[in-house]
Amino acid sequence: MIIHYTKDINLNHNTITLTGDEAQHCAKVLRKRMGEDIYVTDGEGALHSCKIIEISKTECKAEIFNTLQQSKRLYDLTISICPTKKQSRIEWFLEKAVEIGVSRIILTQTQRTEKSRLKEVRLHKIVVAAMKQSKNLYLPQVITNQNWNDLIQCNDYGDKYIAHCEDPKTHLAKICGPAQDCIVAIGPEGDFTTQEIKLALELGWKEINLGSSRLRTETAGVVVASVLAQINM
Amino acid sequence: MIIHYTKDINLNHNTITLTGDEAQHCAKVLRKRMGEDIYVTDGEGALHSCKIIEISKTECKAEIFNTLQQSKRLYDLTISICPTKKQSRIEWFLEKAVEIGVSRIILTQTQRTEKSRLKEVRLHKIVVAAMKQSKNLYLPQVITNQNWNDLIQCNDYGDKYIAHCEDPKTHLAKICGPAQDCIVAIGPEGDFTTQEIKLALELGWKEINLGSSRLRTETAGVVVASVLAQINM
Repeated sequence: MIIHYTKDINLNHNTITLTGDEAQHCAKVLRKRMGEDIYVTDGEGALHSCKIIEISKTECKAEIFNTLQQSKRLYDLTISICPTKKQSRIEWFLEKAVEIGVSRIILTQTQRTEKSRLKEVRLHKIVVAAMKQSKNLYLPQVITNQNWNDLIQCNDYGDKYIAHCEDPKTHLAKICGPAQDCIVAIGPEGDFTTQEIKLALELGWKEINLGSSRLRTETAGVVVASVLAQINM
Repeated sequence: MIIHYTKDINLNHNTITLTGDEAQHCAKVLRKRMGEDIYVTDGEGALHSCKIIEISKTECKAEIFNTLQQSKRLYDLTISICPTKKQSRIEWFLEKAVEIGVSRIILTQTQRTEKSRLKEVRLHKIVVAAMKQSKNLYLPQVITNQNWNDLIQCNDYGDKYIAHCEDPKTHLAKICGPAQDCIVAIGPEGDFTTQEIKLALELGWKEINLGSSRLRTETAGVVVASVLAQINM
């Protein structure tokens, strides 16, 4: 089942409109015609079954004839992660985390984080594609250019965990229970500094490990999504 | 800590020899000199601390002064996975599975598997690099060009699980216990055929799911490695 994504949904008139890439994909790649059915999500859990009433290469209008609402995940998971030197690694993390399940990704600058110009439009495309692919119909939020010192003072995301390599004793799965909102922070290549960890702990973050392997930044991020999915199974 | 890998270890003379890429990395990238220390693994759990006694751009010889033996993982995990259309996706899986922990990867041809020419030398390099990076010092075995019909008749790898999308009721984590050897088979893009699943079940494979998300082949593989790591934590 192929799913399209748009925010252009008119519930009064019971219509949706695809434009840009989504319209192109529908008209040119899938070769959809007038009268055919398509599935459309709003990124907030709704899955609309629609019948095409107008279609061109730039726009596709369709009438909604049925709507299912996907229930929200039991847990709200925020992952704070640092951009990697190779942009492809962080892009890969984004795709996989969205597939497995995550509510929010915060791209955070720490002392040892590589300077990087993240292409936000590209990141958004990756997240949308992974959402559609995985049938998780809530579009995760992506926050870029977050500063670590500001983030650690924030209490908006539930329980706060910091994963680092300086041998914390507790595994994430042993401390985090089901249906529990949380944020897990992963360090950059080269890890958090001792000072950064110390400050976080003073502010109520709990230190955790992700097993005995030395994981790359992006692998650690995917393992976090996977551990949380398993806890909430 | 940077770890080198070689099979050229002479325990009678207490020496190791790096050649090829490993020697180049040591001499040219790390600019190591006579008398300096390096760490070398044999891919079978040994970590040798060595002192360089001869070094050129093509060969590095070192004397072992200490050896630690990493204990084997509690579980032997084999993942059977199908080559993806884009080789980069399966390469990515290899890297991540080795980082998180896996004993053996079998690249399997099923009815719907894309024909692909896997570059075995390249795959070997990825596995070695990920082993060194993650400090899991047992080099996983990679088997290519396995036929699905032969694989399902094999009983060499412990309990047999097949993950597919036709809605199996049991999650891998609910059926597989700790310290249990197993093989988990993941289907190709487009999944196993109903016939392939039926035949496997008749031969004692148990069907499992990996959660409610529709996962790509390579994501499913990484989730399997992560689930098993968590079960055996």
